[in-house]
Amino acid sequence: MGPDSSQDAQTVSQVGEFGLIDRVTSGRQQSPGTLIGPGDDAAVLAAPDGRVVATTDVLVEQVHFRFDWSTPRQVGRKAVAVNLSDIAAMGAVPTGLLVGLGCSQDTPTEVVDELSAGMWEEAQQVGIGLVGGDMVSATALVISVTALGDLQGRQPVTRSGARPGDVVAVAGRLGWAAAGLAVLGRGFRSPVAVVGAQRVPEPPYAAGPLAAEAGATSMVDISDGLLADLGHIATASGVAVDIRNELLEVPQRLSEVASALGADARHWVLTGGEDQALAATFPPEVALPEGWRAVGVTAEGQGVTVDGAPYEGSSGWEHWR
Amino acid sequence: MGPDSSQDAQTVSQVGEFGLIDRVTSGRQQSPGTLIGPGDDAAVLAAPDGRVVATTDVLVEQVHFRFDWSTPRQVGRKAVAVNLSDIAAMGAVPTGLLVGLGCSQDTPTEVVDELSAGMWEEAQQVGIGLVGGDMVSATALVISVTALGDLQGRQPVTRSGARPGDVVAVAGRLGWAAAGLAVLGRGFRSPVAVVGAQRVPEPPYAAGPLAAEAGATSMVDISDGLLADLGHIATASGVAVDIRNELLEVPQRLSEVASALGADARHWVLTGGEDQALAATFPPEVALPEGWRAVGVTAEGQGVTVDGAPYEGSSGWEHWR
Repeated sequence: MGPDSSQDAQTVSQVGEFGLIDRVTSGRQQSPGTLIGPGDDAAVLAAPDGRVVATTDVLVEQVHFRFDWSTPRQVGRKAVAVNLSDIAAMGAVPTGLLVGLGCSQDTPTEVVDELSAGMWEEAQQVGIGLVGGDMVSATALVISVTALGDLQGRQPVTRSGARPGDVVAVAGRLGWAAAGLAVLGRGFRSPVAVVGAQRVPEPPYAAGPLAAEAGATSMVDISDGLLADLGHIATASGVAVDIRNELLEVPQRLSEVASALGADARHWVLTGGEDQALAATFPPEVALPEGWRAVGVTAEGQGVTVDGAPYEGSSGWEHWR
Repeated sequence: MGPDSSQDAQTVSQVGEFGLIDRVTSGRQQSPGTLIGPGDDAAVLAAPDGRVVATTDVLVEQVHFRFDWSTPRQVGRKAVAVNLSDIAAMGAVPTGLLVGLGCSQDTPTEVVDELSAGMWEEAQQVGIGLVGGDMVSATALVISVTALGDLQGRQPVTRSGARPGDVVAVAGRLGWAAAGLAVLGRGFRSPVAVVGAQRVPEPPYAAGPLAAEAGATSMVDISDGLLADLGHIATASGVAVDIRNELLEVPQRLSEVASALGADARHWVLTGGEDQALAATFPPEVALPEGWRAVGVTAEGQGVTVDGAPYEGSSGWEHWR
C-alpha cells in the first residue's frame, strides 16, 4: 500500500484477489449441508434428495443495477434474491450459492465488502451461504450468481405441466418494483415502499415448495413480468392463460404512486418483473396454499389474455430489445 | 430484422434474448443425468452420490482471452475446460454446466454460436451438456461458467490433506500455455503446438478421479502456476513442498521455443498456469496412477521451494496485481 492509502479507501488492487476472497468468506456461517465451503477448487454440498436444482443469473452494472439508485448492499441482496427465486419456482429449497465477481482495479474494497454483506444477508434469510466463487478483473462491475437447491423428495414443478381448467395463482408482490423504477426514473427517492421494492425484492421463497406440495401443475418466477412469464407457461404447457381483472389486486399504494406520476398501476402489476413473485397453476380442486391468490384460469388454446383480450403494449422485459 | 440485415450478419439484438437461448441449446444432446435441461427456471441434475461438487469461473474479454489470439470457439472450449478441471481436482466427474453470457447488442450472432459450439465441444468430451444459463447485455464480453460434479462415492480430495513425506505429483502438461502466451505476445502465431495449448488447454480430466481412488491426500488444479498452486496445498495442509529439478521434465519443444525467444522454459513449467494440469500429493507407498508423474516431496515446514531454495521471481498469476 502506498503512503496515501488509508484503511477505508483501499481498492481491490491493493488488497489483491486472495485478500478479497478472504474478506468475502471468512468468519461467515455456512449451512450444515456445506461439506466443503470456500477455499478449495470446488465446493461440496449435500444433495440428500439425490438430485440437485441449479440456476444462474448474471447482473451487470448500468443494465441490472445502478449505484446511484441502489447501495452495493442492496445490489448484493438483489443478485442473490433473483437466483433464490428461481430455485423456489421449481419447488425446491436452496442449499448454497456460488458467486463470480468481476470488477475494475480501482473499485473500492468497501464496495466489494458491501456487495458481499448484502449477498450473505439475503442468503442467510434462507439459511444458506456463499460456498464458492471467483473474482476477476473486468471493466464494468459484473456479478454472476449460481444457486443450488434440493427438492426434498418432491417432483420439480416445471413450466410445462399446466392443464386446461387449472387455476392461475400468484404469490408475492406484483408491480412494486416497476413502480419504484418509475419513481427513480423521474429523479425521486420516495415513497420508500416502492423504491425499496425496486432496490431489494422480497420473493416469497417458502411459497414455491408449498405450491409443489399442494400439487401445482406448473410454476415460474416472475422476473420479466406477469404476462410475459405466464407466456412461458402457456407456451411450454400448450394452454391458454387468461388473467381476470376482477381478481387482480392493485394495491392502493401503487395507485397513489401511479396517479402522482400519471402512470397506470395496473400496467405495473401486469408487466413489472423485478419483484420476483411466483406464478403457478393448480388443479381447480386444490385449495391454494398459504401466500397464494388466484388471478386467472387456463383453457384450451394458446397465449395470454386479460379478461379474454390480448393485452395492449409491451408485456415484459427482453435483453437487447 | 431490417431490410439490410442478412442471415450471416445478424447481431444478438436482432435475434433477441430468447432466440439466442434457443440457438445455444436446441438440438443438443443432454446427458442421461440431466432430468430437466435448459428452458425452465432452473435445471435439475441427478446427484446419485448424495453430494454435489460445484465450482464457478468468470472469463472476461481482454483479461482472460483476446479474439485476435483465439477464435470464439476456442474461447468457449477454454471457458468450460477451466471449470471441468476444478471438478477433476476434487476427484469428481462432471455432471453439467450452467453458462452466463454477457455481451453487447452489436455482438454478431455468429460469435455467440461459435462460443456455444466450443462450450458444447468441450462438455461433450466428458459426456455432459449445458443444462442452463443466462444471457444479458453487457459492455464487454463476459462468460461465467458453473460446473457441477459427482463424487461417485469417493471422498473429495481437498487442498488440506497433504502430510510430510508425501510424494508430490502432477498430471497433464506444464508450461505449454505459458510458452504459447509468450509466442503470441511477440506477435507470432506458431509453433502451433504451444499456441494451441494457450488457446485451448487439455486438462487431464480422468486423472482427478484416478488420483482420488489411488488415495491422493491433497489435490489442486494448476490455474495460477505449479509453484503458486502448490503454495495453496502447502498453506492449507501445513506442510513444506519441495520441487526437485531433476524430476521436472522440460519438454524439448518448450526449450526450443524458449531458446528462440530468449526465454526460460523451466520458468514456464514452474509458473505457467493455463494448461490446467493437476497437482496432488500421495502417500509414499502409493503407486502413482496412470498419467501421474512425481515432481517433488512434502516435508515438515511451510512454503514451496525448488531443490530446497525459494524460487526467484513471480510464481504465478493474481488478479489486479
